[in-house]
Amino acid sequence: MAKNKANRLKARVPRGFADRSPADIRETLRITDTIRTVYERWGFEPVETPLIEYADALGKFLPDADRPNEGVFAFQDDDEQWLSLRYDLTAPLARHVAENFDRTPRPYKSYRAGWVFRNEKPGPGRFRQFMQFDADIVGAASPLADAEICMMAADTMEALGFSRGEYRIRVNSRVVLDTLLDAFGIERDDTAKRLAILRTIDKSDKFSRGDIFALLTSGRLDPSGDPMPGVGLSEAEALVLMSRFMPFDPKAHDAALSDQEFSVDILSSDPAYLSLNDQVDNHEGFRIAMAQTEELVNYCRASGYDESRIIRDFSVVRGLEYYTGAVYEAELTFETTDDKGRPIRFGSVGGGGRYDGLVGRFVSQNVPATGFSVGVSRLQAALAARNTAGETPGPVIVTVMDRDTIPHYQAMTAKLRAALNQGGDVVPVEMYIGDSGMKAQLKYADRRNAPCVIIQGSDERDAGTVQIKDLAAGKAASEDITDRAEWVAARPAQQEVADDIDTIAAAVRAILTS
Amino acid sequence: MAKNKANRLKARVPRGFADRSPADIRETLRITDTIRTVYERWGFEPVETPLIEYADALGKFLPDADRPNEGVFAFQDDDEQWLSLRYDLTAPLARHVAENFDRTPRPYKSYRAGWVFRNEKPGPGRFRQFMQFDADIVGAASPLADAEICMMAADTMEALGFSRGEYRIRVNSRVVLDTLLDAFGIERDDTAKRLAILRTIDKSDKFSRGDIFALLTSGRLDPSGDPMPGVGLSEAEALVLMSRFMPFDPKAHDAALSDQEFSVDILSSDPAYLSLNDQVDNHEGFRIAMAQTEELVNYCRASGYDESRIIRDFSVVRGLEYYTGAVYEAELTFETTDDKGRPIRFGSVGGGGRYDGLVGRFVSQNVPATGFSVGVSRLQAALAARNTAGETPGPVIVTVMDRDTIPHYQAMTAKLRAALNQGGDVVPVEMYIGDSGMKAQLKYADRRNAPCVIIQGSDERDAGTVQIKDLAAGKAASEDITDRAEWVAARPAQQEVADDIDTIAAAVRAILTS
Repeated sequence: MAKNKANRLKARVPRGFADRSPADIRETLRITDTIRTVYERWGFEPVETPLIEYADALGKFLPDADRPNEGVFAFQDDDEQWLSLRYDLTAPLARHVAENFDRTPRPYKSYRAGWVFRNEKPGPGRFRQFMQFDADIVGAASPLADAEICMMAADTMEALGFSRGEYRIRVNSRVVLDTLLDAFGIERDDTAKRLAILRTIDKSDKFSRGDIFALLTSGRLDPSGDPMPGVGLSEAEALVLMSRFMPFDPKAHDAALSDQEFSVDILSSDPAYLSLNDQVDNHEGFRIAMAQTEELVNYCRASGYDESRIIRDFSVVRGLEYYTGAVYEAELTFETTDDKGRPIRFGSVGGGGRYDGLVGRFVSQNVPATGFSVGVSRLQAALAARNTAGETPGPVIVTVMDRDTIPHYQAMTAKLRAALNQGGDVVPVEMYIGDSGMKAQLKYADRRNAPCVIIQGSDERDAGTVQIKDLAAGKAASEDITDRAEWVAARPAQQEVADDIDTIAAAVRAILTS
Repeated sequence: MAKNKANRLKARVPRGFADRSPADIRETLRITDTIRTVYERWGFEPVETPLIEYADALGKFLPDADRPNEGVFAFQDDDEQWLSLRYDLTAPLARHVAENFDRTPRPYKSYRAGWVFRNEKPGPGRFRQFMQFDADIVGAASPLADAEICMMAADTMEALGFSRGEYRIRVNSRVVLDTLLDAFGIERDDTAKRLAILRTIDKSDKFSRGDIFALLTSGRLDPSGDPMPGVGLSEAEALVLMSRFMPFDPKAHDAALSDQEFSVDILSSDPAYLSLNDQVDNHEGFRIAMAQTEELVNYCRASGYDESRIIRDFSVVRGLEYYTGAVYEAELTFETTDDKGRPIRFGSVGGGGRYDGLVGRFVSQNVPATGFSVGVSRLQAALAARNTAGETPGPVIVTVMDRDTIPHYQAMTAKLRAALNQGGDVVPVEMYIGDSGMKAQLKYADRRNAPCVIIQGSDERDAGTVQIKDLAAGKAASEDITDRAEWVAARPAQQEVADDIDTIAAAVRAILTS
């Protein structure tokens, strides 16, 4: 009944999508359980929305995309209305809060984990379906709410196993950036220039300080000789921006990037720079914005979260078209190596900020909101690079030597499963249910990573016994034995015990804990 | 900044989709954790596939739909290839197994929970996004594999809290049905007639036996007088079918449905019936099919699963265009009441069967497969109707009496949270982070279902104490007190303790366990 090969379907997933292995699934479960426990302890409650929403309800709020409406999977419903797969968990939350506005006690603190979709060009480690885990506070305008999110993010990182110093919650404010540009005299509605400036600053992890300076002012040539246009700030403006948003940190850049074409020390004696610097410090909006960020950080300090956990960092420039106040980022600060042994830093594994405008799209009042999103897949990659996770043991396997006595093997399997799985224990136990012989069954057990197999042929049955073979110990022993006769005589890592469930269970337990 | 109301977006979910409440989410988590534990203990391992697949890889295998290709959400990728949201978890598993065929030890036993989508007309309790939890065995042709799935389904029902007698795993075989129609001389390619017969039998829970007999033969008039056409079987054929597939069970039908227009006892003395009955019993294909089902059930019996748990039932007619061998269904047998107090039976909460053809679409050999799918939402509805689930307590709330001392309240909150959440405990603790006064804070605590609140004004701070108010006890006490002076004097359910974390934690713990 084999089909013509030409007509046979090719089994493949669309690009940017992937199947998930047992280890991957179990680790995601561990991570989401850990995060959930932290969020519950802070008084957040779960809420979930569907994966499909009306396209207009989601809006065009992709926080990180330059062209937000691209990048969304959309299709028309029977009634011609446009539906979208959600691209994040924030836009649906805003819709949910608006829809249940009067029923919801506020401040409303909620969390949710779920798959989101971006219809973008996939790449290595970049998928079109990925998991986010969000926590949000809706209906609290105070920096207390932002502080709470930042502290909870710090607790989350520690609950996941990162120690202090291995991560940092970096805090900034969209308002600090906005008012600083106000102080320069750049108009609010000159969004093109404002965004160009902020995007340039956001490249500080990829370019040297000299390059950033050039890109903020009159531009430069890229290595191939092509011109890279500048944003057009004066040198003094660029210096003020960089001294505030990109404080020089030799640890943060490797030698190649921190080339000293440019030095704040030399240029900061420039009178134009000094005068503009004063002008910024005296700008009222900027002072208020700075004080608010200060207040947020002070609330964290009062709860015992010091600089090793939560730090003000003006170089955090994320989703500035989207956020309306505080922005924050959870960053991993340690180095690890990629699969080619090269050192890598994971950087951000989550972030968020204040998005006061989002719920107001639906209701007749402004509704303050702030929230944090963990990139679960990215976090999982970081944890995997750091820890060599132990392999989960496979099932204890009762082999089938003699098909006529399957009912006996079955009963043994059922009783052994019951005996080994007391309380909350999970010890997989199965009877082999394929058609193959003993050799293939042992190979199957090996591929399933079985800790041991139970074997009973007619000899054992007559003697009222079973053989228990410890596969890991057997593998270790076989490396020392080269002679087949010696092997047969020694039967390494194999023991014969009475065919009695308590006896078998005790022997298996000893192997599992060895 | 309030927008013009006419321009404001309406917050709503598309029809057939729904937001999920905390209680709903927590119960789903409990159910999926329970099922996962059972499946792991049986040696099944997790595997997950993306929510989006190539439409051709999923194929047209909607098991329950009359017109399978309808009912799927589909859209084109950038490269014009058609993508679909998965409509079940089986078609993607077949694709996954085929794609990893040589790497996968077989028999391959796996499980997965996930959202699936049907682009169908929604109705009460009928959603376009719902959750399934599947377990499958790929690469085992033996009835042992089907038996294992049925036994694991029984274990699952019991782990979920259904006792023996409250559920039943009903087993049938697609082959039994097919060969019986063979014995009648109905051609295999007369699929229209075959399906019409099986769909009629499948209505046995909705129609009386007299109605079914009429529908299998020459038809009848419905209550409004409209004709309902019959399938066109002879009376003898209808009798043989009904005697085998719809054994009379007075408990299974209420009085209105089991009206005695029709009686097997009277008609079964009909010579044409008796002769056809013999013809069926002597049909070789039918005998083999019966023996295989017998073997499946016998394997269950050998493992100790008796008739109260797993039963052969020829009236199970599910997805017959889809399944190729055994079919099985997990049925709830107890009655409960709907929200209007009327008795209802939940019926099926899961089912499955053998689908030997599905992997073979991709690879050059036939790959036997059998699997079971739990409808998580339906199961959850059944559990909810049966148990009155206890409400999860909300957070312990530290109120803010005096905004100047927020740092002190914060520190108290952080320490109390740490003290109450030892080990795996989850006791939510939060400080109020809104802007409102004490009265609104107590209302907020009430709406959050807080077990107690901590209050500290300047009097308490000077005295080095806090007030702890037990909200549930306070509510109970207030029903007995009508006089305000008496209330103020008694301060029911409120206690003053030293402002010391261990003391506060002990008092809160006493309230939580009271």
